[in-house]
Amino acid sequence: MDPVTPARLSLNTATVREQWNLRECIEGCARHGIGGISPWRDKLAECGVDEAARLIADHGLTVTGLCRGGLFPAADAAGRQAALDDNRRALDEALALGARCLILVAGGLPEGSKDIADARAQVRDGIAALLDHARPAGMPLAIEPLHPMYAAGRACVNTLKQANDLCDALGQGVGVAVDVYHVWWDPELEYEILRAGKDRLLAFHVCDWLEPTRDMLLDRGMMGDGVVDIPRIRGWMEAAGYHGFAEVEIFSAETWWKKPADEVLATCVERLSFV
Amino acid sequence: MDPVTPARLSLNTATVREQWNLRECIEGCARHGIGGISPWRDKLAECGVDEAARLIADHGLTVTGLCRGGLFPAADAAGRQAALDDNRRALDEALALGARCLILVAGGLPEGSKDIADARAQVRDGIAALLDHARPAGMPLAIEPLHPMYAAGRACVNTLKQANDLCDALGQGVGVAVDVYHVWWDPELEYEILRAGKDRLLAFHVCDWLEPTRDMLLDRGMMGDGVVDIPRIRGWMEAAGYHGFAEVEIFSAETWWKKPADEVLATCVERLSFV
Repeated sequence: MDPVTPARLSLNTATVREQWNLRECIEGCARHGIGGISPWRDKLAECGVDEAARLIADHGLTVTGLCRGGLFPAADAAGRQAALDDNRRALDEALALGARCLILVAGGLPEGSKDIADARAQVRDGIAALLDHARPAGMPLAIEPLHPMYAAGRACVNTLKQANDLCDALGQGVGVAVDVYHVWWDPELEYEILRAGKDRLLAFHVCDWLEPTRDMLLDRGMMGDGVVDIPRIRGWMEAAGYHGFAEVEIFSAETWWKKPADEVLATCVERLSFV
Repeated sequence: MDPVTPARLSLNTATVREQWNLRECIEGCARHGIGGISPWRDKLAECGVDEAARLIADHGLTVTGLCRGGLFPAADAAGRQAALDDNRRALDEALALGARCLILVAGGLPEGSKDIADARAQVRDGIAALLDHARPAGMPLAIEPLHPMYAAGRACVNTLKQANDLCDALGQGVGVAVDVYHVWWDPELEYEILRAGKDRLLAFHVCDWLEPTRDMLLDRGMMGDGVVDIPRIRGWMEAAGYHGFAEVEIFSAETWWKKPADEVLATCVERLSFV
């Protein structure tokens, strides 16, 4: 298995979100030889989509994804429509950037709901409605299963099997994003990566699971600092036909968000041996 | 579906572990009409097994389980042998109490390991070795899948499917414990409960998942305070043939461990309508 080169590394802007704006992220990637970028929409809005597209093109970066659409479930029809409208805007932004995919984080339980099966049905219907626009536009939608600890608050799609089942149900134009943080524990992971296959494997996100983890949201680790055997998982991805970028996405309030961003990027590059 | 009566409620001693010793737990159950108890081994050791067995019998309580055996994976053969020896002592204690089952929490990754597949193989082998003693003694072993957020540190058996697969591999004498806190998010839950069936469904643990959860270990909620549709899950249990106790197990450093234990038990009884 070939090592991941910096040219095949992508920076998810969440990794340095407290230090840099999008322009600084783009220039930082270029400086460190990092070939890809995956912006979050708040950074993108701040920069402006046209300006961002120009800067990214000028620096020769690949947009490995736009983070993020999704968050479909809502307590009423008006909320669902608002979610769909926002997803269409995200789709337009992904198209303007020439992103490889629009990342979808499903969304959790609507306020006051205990019906996770209903939330999951809303996610399926929401993606189907978005697909009506994404498919003719040629923008792949990447369903990212999140760790089960986020099932209530953030995403009720919690395993790669669920994401694959959704792809089966929804047809062309939708695939999956595999983030090792969310799926590393799953005994079905190897099988489900193979099942997804080359056409559906749209993104590969890396970081590490720290043990112990001190915060459920903002204590992700740098590759090599935790317990995840990332090369094993990347091997499964490659065996299934994925040879795209490894995108580093680290939420780390107490460690990496407190360091100079150039040091963070340099560390990501150094730690490619753990990817 | 019949409501759960206090007589069919069991107190897992972890729920009031900061307030009461085992004798106080036993007397508290009797005072509140709670019919079952599930002691942790530290409380049991403090009380003494014979004394505990006498007190439990005197108060007419059912021992719905003993918490806990397991923690099988280790870095070397000596560690694995030590784990097995300790599990045999737990087995003897469960027998002395006449417990309905010995709860097994699998154990996580050995220090320094990133090989979760190996840890899982060690769990299978450890349970097999323990079964050689448990089966002739007639003590059922209950594999309790823990939430995937505990995969590294505490238990690498993380779904009911995994537990059922282990049961298939290991044969007679082993079943599962279903704790809603650990499995409520699982899209396969209904199917896997049905698959386990009456003979393998050895225990049903209840509490609630708070949203947001502020601590990964010690912020479980009282039934009704969170997002879990417990009656739906109990309905699946009963459809599969389980008509045993509902055992309340709440780790709650900031809320329930700070209240008078009698108030906690009274609240558990009041909240049976959420079970």
